[in-house]
Amino acid sequence: MSQLPPPKSPNNSAVETRHVVMPDHANHYGTAFGGAIMSWIDLIAVMAAQRHCGREAVTASIDRINFISPIQIGDYVHLKAMVNYVGKTSMEVGVQVNKENPYTGESLRATTAYLSFVALDGNKKPTPVPELILETPTEIRRYEEGKLRIETAKELARKIKDSRM
Amino acid sequence: MSQLPPPKSPNNSAVETRHVVMPDHANHYGTAFGGAIMSWIDLIAVMAAQRHCGREAVTASIDRINFISPIQIGDYVHLKAMVNYVGKTSMEVGVQVNKENPYTGESLRATTAYLSFVALDGNKKPTPVPELILETPTEIRRYEEGKLRIETAKELARKIKDSRM
Amino acid sequence: MSQLPPPKSPNNSAVETRHVVMPDHANHYGTAFGGAIMSWIDLIAVMAAQRHCGREAVTASIDRINFISPIQIGDYVHLKAMVNYVGKTSMEVGVQVNKENPYTGESLRATTAYLSFVALDGNKKPTPVPELILETPTEIRRYEEGKLRIETAKELARKIKDSRM
Amino acid sequence: MSQLPPPKSPNNSAVETRHVVMPDHANHYGTAFGGAIMSWIDLIAVMAAQRHCGREAVTASIDRINFISPIQIGDYVHLKAMVNYVGKTSMEVGVQVNKENPYTGESLRATTAYLSFVALDGNKKPTPVPELILETPTEIRRYEEGKLRIETAKELARKIKDSRM
Amino acid sequence: MSQLPPPKSPNNSAVETRHVVMPDHANHYGTAFGGAIMSWIDLIAVMAAQRHCGREAVTASIDRINFISPIQIGDYVHLKAMVNYVGKTSMEVGVQVNKENPYTGESLRATTAYLSFVALDGNKKPTPVPELILETPTEIRRYEEGKLRIETAKELARKIKDSRM
Amino acid sequence: MSQLPPPKSPNNSAVETRHVVMPDHANHYGTAFGGAIMSWIDLIAVMAAQRHCGREAVTASIDRINFISPIQIGDYVHLKAMVNYVGKTSMEVGVQVNKENPYTGESLRATTAYLSFVALDGNKKPTPVPELILETPTEIRRYEEGKLRIETAKELARKIKDSRM
Repeated sequence: MSQLPPPKSPNNSAVETRHVVMPDHANHYGTAFGGAIMSWIDLIAVMAAQRHCGREAVTASIDRINFISPIQIGDYVHLKAMVNYVGKTSMEVGVQVNKENPYTGESLRATTAYLSFVALDGNKKPTPVPELILETPTEIRRYEEGKLRIETAKELARKIKDSRM
Repeated sequence: MSQLPPPKSPNNSAVETRHVVMPDHANHYGTAFGGAIMSWIDLIAVMAAQRHCGREAVTASIDRINFISPIQIGDYVHLKAMVNYVGKTSMEVGVQVNKENPYTGESLRATTAYLSFVALDGNKKPTPVPELILETPTEIRRYEEGKLRIETAKELARKIKDSRM
Repeated sequence: MSQLPPPKSPNNSAVETRHVVMPDHANHYGTAFGGAIMSWIDLIAVMAAQRHCGREAVTASIDRINFISPIQIGDYVHLKAMVNYVGKTSMEVGVQVNKENPYTGESLRATTAYLSFVALDGNKKPTPVPELILETPTEIRRYEEGKLRIETAKELARKIKDSRM
Repeated sequence: MSQLPPPKSPNNSAVETRHVVMPDHANHYGTAFGGAIMSWIDLIAVMAAQRHCGREAVTASIDRINFISPIQIGDYVHLKAMVNYVGKTSMEVGVQVNKENPYTGESLRATTAYLSFVALDGNKKPTPVPELILETPTEIRRYEEGKLRIETAKELARKIKDSRM
Repeated sequence: MSQLPPPKSPNNSAVETRHVVMPDHANHYGTAFGGAIMSWIDLIAVMAAQRHCGREAVTASIDRINFISPIQIGDYVHLKAMVNYVGKTSMEVGVQVNKENPYTGESLRATTAYLSFVALDGNKKPTPVPELILETPTEIRRYEEGKLRIETAKELARKIKDSRM
Repeated sequence: MSQLPPPKSPNNSAVETRHVVMPDHANHYGTAFGGAIMSWIDLIAVMAAQRHCGREAVTASIDRINFISPIQIGDYVHLKAMVNYVGKTSMEVGVQVNKENPYTGESLRATTAYLSFVALDGNKKPTPVPELILETPTEIRRYEEGKLRIETAKELARKIKDSRM
């Protein structure tokens, strides 16, 4: 009697895209702003989230973005997003950002990001999302790590709230 | 003793990307401008061309763009580019543009495009490009069609030039 | 008893505009992307097409764009568009793109483009466009060349379609 | 023995351009921001100024911009700029901004603007500009009005400075 | 029995903001276009005007903008806007634009601007604005200078109109 | 003999800025993208970080962004950034994002963000930053919470790394 949508594999909603870093994306040293990368990250992550839940999804939080190696004007940037973990109405999406050599296609990890989305029904209220079908060891590892990130964030929020009382 | 770069398969340089149609990409009826789509087409086509030749490539001509079905504000757009045909220093790149349903991922052909690029050496002079390795019937068909487009365009240019004398 | 709109001269709908090439329009060698030029071309061409037919017009195809000489960051770009040829519900618009010296106003042809538009009625269906009044030898030549481009494109499409069967 | 550049007619440096008002140029009532129009005004005015003096020119002041009738999203905007008045190293440029009906080409005055530019030599120092050749009554009227605007602005600045002492 | 909204101090509606000058805001010498600065000026000035009148306000005129010292790519720009003077349905807003050293926060005046806004009621008709409460000598001085600018502009417009008859 | 720069109060580097949400910042439901807000957050946070360390600073990580209430097209957004916590070469910056009513100036918390920056010397190597002078209970609370966030993030990274072995 469950009305929950049928479970989906992370592969069903994985998406990828590419951008070129332009002068307006970078500071005057030629290094791309975090904010420019973050816009691209949010856009592809929401694509993956909406494909997983099959409806509107909005960004609830950025759980973590690590800027590993700097990206320069003229670099090609390749982004891949997939759903790592789901709660009842929420989805954690992981995004890998690579710099691509425009001539060889060689790729170097520049940034990793984890964002949480909430699925909304027609009244803009949170609504249940499909469960995740986990088939490979990598999918299981990503799920466990996503769960750990979410739980750690909740516990941290609790600690800070308590300390303010 | 040839110094030509080694031949490459179209797969070696194929790329894909995605965009979202924003209000500033569209007329006041909500339909995306041809020009917005054309910018995305040029950007991904130059990526494929540069990967094939392994160096700077510049757009020499747009040989044909067909706008098959209109694209609206909010649509996700998926582009795939691959090298169809090569001359001595030139490459014809084909680009397929699909509209993607943001919730189901379903895809509908919106636009097809054919662009010619020239590979440039360090002095901005045309320089030879790798030959194409054709392995599948589709690759062979695309090569033949690219050749036909290029030859037709050359003949048309000749006719127009002659008629002006 | 014809309800066709009255014929118009190409001069009645000719338009011109100017742009400045900014860093975000160019690759990291300083050369403007084909795509940036193409956006400006489409925008002015649709202006000419809508003035000719007196209603909404949408880009049906890019029939040809030749990039003749490169355009650099800081260049002023001057575009002129006029209707060359009309079919029953379609119009071929030619666009001349010149680089202008900002200090002397001297002008050099950089790009030529030919685009086809379709006039739409209130239900987004193709609707007849005014005939072209041809008065000068140049207008007649442009009409004949436009006709040749359209017919060549149709024949090429037919050949490719047949070869795929 | 004068090294002054030869005089020029306002026609020698007059320029025109066109833009389309997009959603990002307008407030949420659909009316174009003054700032969007001002950017287009400055850009075409500097084009006219640089053509007159044949070198780099920078905006010294906006002497007056009147927003006469509102411009809406989707409107075509036509701008014409010409040099009205020149001082030793400065030029006053007038800009007329019209809304154009996209289908009929009919035109309605939306904004008028007057800006002052200074010509700069290679060391970024003010340098003499060509005198204006005035041939028509309209050119003479514009010159006189420009002179009056400049003198009024100088006197106003003097009054305000004195009152602050 | 007056239905006029209660008077307000200039402080009640003063606002400030900051921007970074990007390559697309500047000419190829690296100096910010007047037009880029003008967009930021208009946006913050309309914020102050709308806060003063508590409803929609639109730019009626730019009364004066002085570009005092050039702004370069990479500069931080700090803008402060406040209402200087009010008429029955109009408000004069002054904007101070400073360059800020990104590392020390030190500030240098780059531009001053004076703009007039009109408050609009729900039918887009001019509607009365709150009077200004003037408490400090600076507020009184700004009010008097604003009044002088408005009156001077009106007299100049009259003179030019008369001379055209 | 320490060459460390002298300590600074969070107030010495606090900055604020304002933006207006435009149609291109929002999805087709009118809700601002997380990515648009994130760009503004990164830009103001890097301003505060660079003012604290008095040199170039780059985003090392986004530690947390909570999207508390949605932001719509037309909303005014007010951002305040201040340095909460410093390590040897790193700084944690907190950003508060409020929606402002354009007519009343009333303010509602929309987003909170915590980002870590690294100060770079002329060779792009991490370099020591000034210590924080903590004077108020709020400054001390923010410092403690920043420390807790950083330590929690480090421990989480360690756990995930260990689990992958």
